[in-house]
Amino acid sequence: MALAAILLALLASPALAADPSGDITIEENPNAALDFAWVLICGFLVMFMQAGFAMLETGFTRSKNAANIMMKNMMDFSIGALAYWAVGFAVMYGTTEIIAEVMGWGGFFLAGEAYDVSTIESWFFQMVFAATAATIVSGAVAERCKFSTYLIISALITAVIYPLYGHWVWGGGFLSEMGALDFAGSGVVHALGGWVALAGALLLGPRIGKYQRDGKPNAIPGHSITLGTLGVFILWFGWYGFNCGSTLVGDALRVSIIAANTTLAAAAAMAVAMFITWAWHGKPDVGMAGNGAIAGLVAITAGCAWVTPSASVLIGIIAGFLVVFSVWLMDWKLHIDDPVGAISVHGVNGAWGLLALGIFADGTYGGVAGLLHGGSDFFVAQVFSVVVNFTWAFGLGLIIFFILKKTIGIRVEATDEIAGLDLSEHGMTAYPNFIHSETGRGD
Amino acid sequence: MALAAILLALLASPALAADPSGDITIEENPNAALDFAWVLICGFLVMFMQAGFAMLETGFTRSKNAANIMMKNMMDFSIGALAYWAVGFAVMYGTTEIIAEVMGWGGFFLAGEAYDVSTIESWFFQMVFAATAATIVSGAVAERCKFSTYLIISALITAVIYPLYGHWVWGGGFLSEMGALDFAGSGVVHALGGWVALAGALLLGPRIGKYQRDGKPNAIPGHSITLGTLGVFILWFGWYGFNCGSTLVGDALRVSIIAANTTLAAAAAMAVAMFITWAWHGKPDVGMAGNGAIAGLVAITAGCAWVTPSASVLIGIIAGFLVVFSVWLMDWKLHIDDPVGAISVHGVNGAWGLLALGIFADGTYGGVAGLLHGGSDFFVAQVFSVVVNFTWAFGLGLIIFFILKKTIGIRVEATDEIAGLDLSEHGMTAYPNFIHSETGRGD
Amino acid sequence: MALAAILLALLASPALAADPSGDITIEENPNAALDFAWVLICGFLVMFMQAGFAMLETGFTRSKNAANIMMKNMMDFSIGALAYWAVGFAVMYGTTEIIAEVMGWGGFFLAGEAYDVSTIESWFFQMVFAATAATIVSGAVAERCKFSTYLIISALITAVIYPLYGHWVWGGGFLSEMGALDFAGSGVVHALGGWVALAGALLLGPRIGKYQRDGKPNAIPGHSITLGTLGVFILWFGWYGFNCGSTLVGDALRVSIIAANTTLAAAAAMAVAMFITWAWHGKPDVGMAGNGAIAGLVAITAGCAWVTPSASVLIGIIAGFLVVFSVWLMDWKLHIDDPVGAISVHGVNGAWGLLALGIFADGTYGGVAGLLHGGSDFFVAQVFSVVVNFTWAFGLGLIIFFILKKTIGIRVEATDEIAGLDLSEHGMTAYPNFIHSETGRGD
Repeated sequence: MALAAILLALLASPALAADPSGDITIEENPNAALDFAWVLICGFLVMFMQAGFAMLETGFTRSKNAANIMMKNMMDFSIGALAYWAVGFAVMYGTTEIIAEVMGWGGFFLAGEAYDVSTIESWFFQMVFAATAATIVSGAVAERCKFSTYLIISALITAVIYPLYGHWVWGGGFLSEMGALDFAGSGVVHALGGWVALAGALLLGPRIGKYQRDGKPNAIPGHSITLGTLGVFILWFGWYGFNCGSTLVGDALRVSIIAANTTLAAAAAMAVAMFITWAWHGKPDVGMAGNGAIAGLVAITAGCAWVTPSASVLIGIIAGFLVVFSVWLMDWKLHIDDPVGAISVHGVNGAWGLLALGIFADGTYGGVAGLLHGGSDFFVAQVFSVVVNFTWAFGLGLIIFFILKKTIGIRVEATDEIAGLDLSEHGMTAYPNFIHSETGRGD
Repeated sequence: MALAAILLALLASPALAADPSGDITIEENPNAALDFAWVLICGFLVMFMQAGFAMLETGFTRSKNAANIMMKNMMDFSIGALAYWAVGFAVMYGTTEIIAEVMGWGGFFLAGEAYDVSTIESWFFQMVFAATAATIVSGAVAERCKFSTYLIISALITAVIYPLYGHWVWGGGFLSEMGALDFAGSGVVHALGGWVALAGALLLGPRIGKYQRDGKPNAIPGHSITLGTLGVFILWFGWYGFNCGSTLVGDALRVSIIAANTTLAAAAAMAVAMFITWAWHGKPDVGMAGNGAIAGLVAITAGCAWVTPSASVLIGIIAGFLVVFSVWLMDWKLHIDDPVGAISVHGVNGAWGLLALGIFADGTYGGVAGLLHGGSDFFVAQVFSVVVNFTWAFGLGLIIFFILKKTIGIRVEATDEIAGLDLSEHGMTAYPNFIHSETGRGD
Repeated sequence: MALAAILLALLASPALAADPSGDITIEENPNAALDFAWVLICGFLVMFMQAGFAMLETGFTRSKNAANIMMKNMMDFSIGALAYWAVGFAVMYGTTEIIAEVMGWGGFFLAGEAYDVSTIESWFFQMVFAATAATIVSGAVAERCKFSTYLIISALITAVIYPLYGHWVWGGGFLSEMGALDFAGSGVVHALGGWVALAGALLLGPRIGKYQRDGKPNAIPGHSITLGTLGVFILWFGWYGFNCGSTLVGDALRVSIIAANTTLAAAAAMAVAMFITWAWHGKPDVGMAGNGAIAGLVAITAGCAWVTPSASVLIGIIAGFLVVFSVWLMDWKLHIDDPVGAISVHGVNGAWGLLALGIFADGTYGGVAGLLHGGSDFFVAQVFSVVVNFTWAFGLGLIIFFILKKTIGIRVEATDEIAGLDLSEHGMTAYPNFIHSETGRGD
């Protein structure tokens, strides 16, 4: 009802639009044509990452939750796009000064002055980023989180948690005033999503059967390594849009180096993660190789525009170590059950990405120089940014998951969890034409 | 033999080409470079929708027909591209005046004057659209249609049914003369495909086991919700090419609003479809959420360039209701068996898209104004366009399916249908390494 | 350790960069903005072909090797990118003259002068090509090759085998001096990969159970026709980047004809391959249709910029015949076990693509004219190029596989092969939630 009233009001509202046809914009800036083409195509690629996250998450979890996971991944994009249209964009980039370094204001529902080709170009690219931040949480809370609760979390991330922190870094807020940088969102998108995921995984507790009485973790293998790996490829593909599109213009030639750095960090992290598991367990681990690639992508995202290809390889190597170590720490020491390793991949490596930028930026592009090139103040700003990022996302995540836990609840019943969320939440099974293995070992 | 003769003739024909190198075109219009890049990249994305249709259709049907469905989806693109090269494009856009408002003529086989960079750029983008119209039919006739018949239908759609109607709207034919519009093809592509699909589903009759003696429909669940949902994501991704590429130039900045509208309508329709099933059946339905997204995409396709983001949300909301209601109507009242809901998604929502454009176009772009903004004549033209679209596609569809039914036959034998089309049509099984469930309930 | 030392040296090295910011380049050539956008986006599409190769290979082989195949496909891109960064690019395109017609020199690790936006743009596009050449081998050696050996092969292809031959054709080497051409790499990428694959398949020998005592081949059906076909679609999609991006600039309008030719050759080859199997075996074969499409794509890759659409159809028709015949020859006469037909698709049709360019190039673009249009010298150069290509790739492939066979070994133990490489190489199973069929017939 409320939505209907708003929509009717919006349809009836007098036109305050700035440049909805684009005629003025293109006349003032003929280069806008290539800018728009570039940013939109890159945005399409980022949207496709939703498919990658869905495949990765479902492939690396059990078949009895596969439909639920697909549903979550579809709906967080749906809810995320609507929430970012209604509220999120307005509080991230709105230009009415209220408390300017803390939040934006203006452009709710893309109405009024926001009905403008440039504003909406920006909305589109930012919307796919907001939805990415939301979908990261999905993996960490998989196989036990209530679907209804997940929808609320998605809405809150895209309407509030992401936009406010985003404002501080990208919207002219206090972190940017301090000099902190984050080219494509190691912190704004990935670490933020990862730390909310950490809060969720903590408050949800581990899946039934994940830990033995003595605290030793059991491996719970995913139901389709092919789909999971397809997810890795799709994410890597879409990440070129994520990082390269973050130039926001079509004529920043540094973009070729961004593409190369993105590739090299992911390649190095994947190789390192694989070789570590090989040395450690005697066999190269497929899931960890995939997670290594994503960890490398996350880690290079902040600095991709400002470091050298060689530094990217080094950043990736460290990301490969970090992801393997962090997954081990979660599983064996902290006993935080994160089914697909989202916290280690996005949280830990997102933070590493912010620091790496502060260390390795070489000063050849936009004058951004890290610790190794004389930028100690910049490095301090990056460290501060890591702290604020964690405090905000993990703290707010804890509060929200706690309130939801005490009200509508965040976890399905134990019997439903054992039966699988496909059945309990959606009354179906994802693969009705195949006989399922009771043992979970394919026999 | 005939084809060989034609090919030899084409190879031997004197060069009548207009500008096959592009040298003249780029000199006359330097902006053509960006136009070509934009339209081709968007065309690539539309081509990739073929993968989306294939995944959606196979995921939401049974494993015993999975290989047949993949084959249909590969071959309709193959046959479609060849038919549109040989004939379709020539009767849709050929500029020789014969009966100009009814059909085009000229440029068969892209030979002679059509051997020109601009003509072939246009051909490429239109070809992927023609193949989309063809592939829509596949879902509605799934699990029982003869493969050979399907190939013939695909050829007829891409050579005749689509090009002629397309000429009326996009090629300067009588509907465009009357003022009817369809930005990216809610009617030209989707409703047309959907109404041919309706004719096919009607004449084929329901799958064995779909209806009980009292007419109550049985649910026949799909064999892979993960692949089906992957199809939804791929289609949504490719749709940005579909709608945004339909600017046909690289410097129409309105394209950012097209991308936003496309997103918002799909997001709203998906959410609404999900919430309806949740309220109705007690659980949110994964398949219907996916179909909701596609319904929203179909519905916004005609008007995406001419409405506001808020109107797009409203168009999507209505699309969400329409698809749920229409699927129910087909299943429970009309007893038309449409395995993946193609008629409801593409037919019903394609028609809704044409009407929605006639209602909500706000006059800010190209002066196109719908009913709410004073364009009552335009609305009438859209209504007329809906009627012509349905009459043409459904009528011709009926005739063709009827003739095929009386000649080569359109449906496989009952024993073959029960055994599965993979076995009967292709002598294989899609998943030979897994044990299949006789009950169709995964046990 | 060595790598660490190199990375430290690179980080500490004085800046010799040419134009790492891009400021100079864009000022000298404003068109570079569109060039970069075009080449990078096309490069992203080529990278995504990795997902297509992975899906195709895993879908058309058995489930017990699925995880191993995903791992190979991830790691060849990782290793390939790193090898091409460290060495490959430098010996392919380095401009220091040492033995200029045989190999390049310069730009190792993209350091020094190579830290330049144009150089790295070129690196990115070439890197995804190098990785494609590597991944072709994967299919032919599937289900029996040791994983460690495969990594070494991948590194050698991307560091040495591909770059040297590439230098001869694209880097100013002796084949280009002779007038041989290869627009997007039928020979440089596909035939090269295919002939290395032939060497591998020969020295590995057939899979256990492939041949009966009398030499009659057994069909070993793939475990997921849906994933295999998804691979075909992804490859076709990515191929537009492969062929169209090979203009290397954004304002070559001939690119529309390249896109059309790419489509038509694939469509024709797919249709022909399907109809042959239909006529021959009584039923249209899904796997062969998919392989037909890829064969058509391989065959048109060399000539896509220089032939007419009609010639493309003819090239595709012949490719369709060639792939069916070659697969039969391998299986029934030569007894070379190539699980996914990589040799026939990439090797045979890559060679055909080079010849077809020499026959059909029509002289309308860049003056390139084949045998039918008066270019007999050019045709001879193409024939010579085919011979050099085969000799180099097959010969070096034999030597490398032979050395590896005599040292670390190239084939897993028979018991491991029977158990599946997922278990023996990675200690896991790809689908633990499903019961597998012992018969391999889905029951």
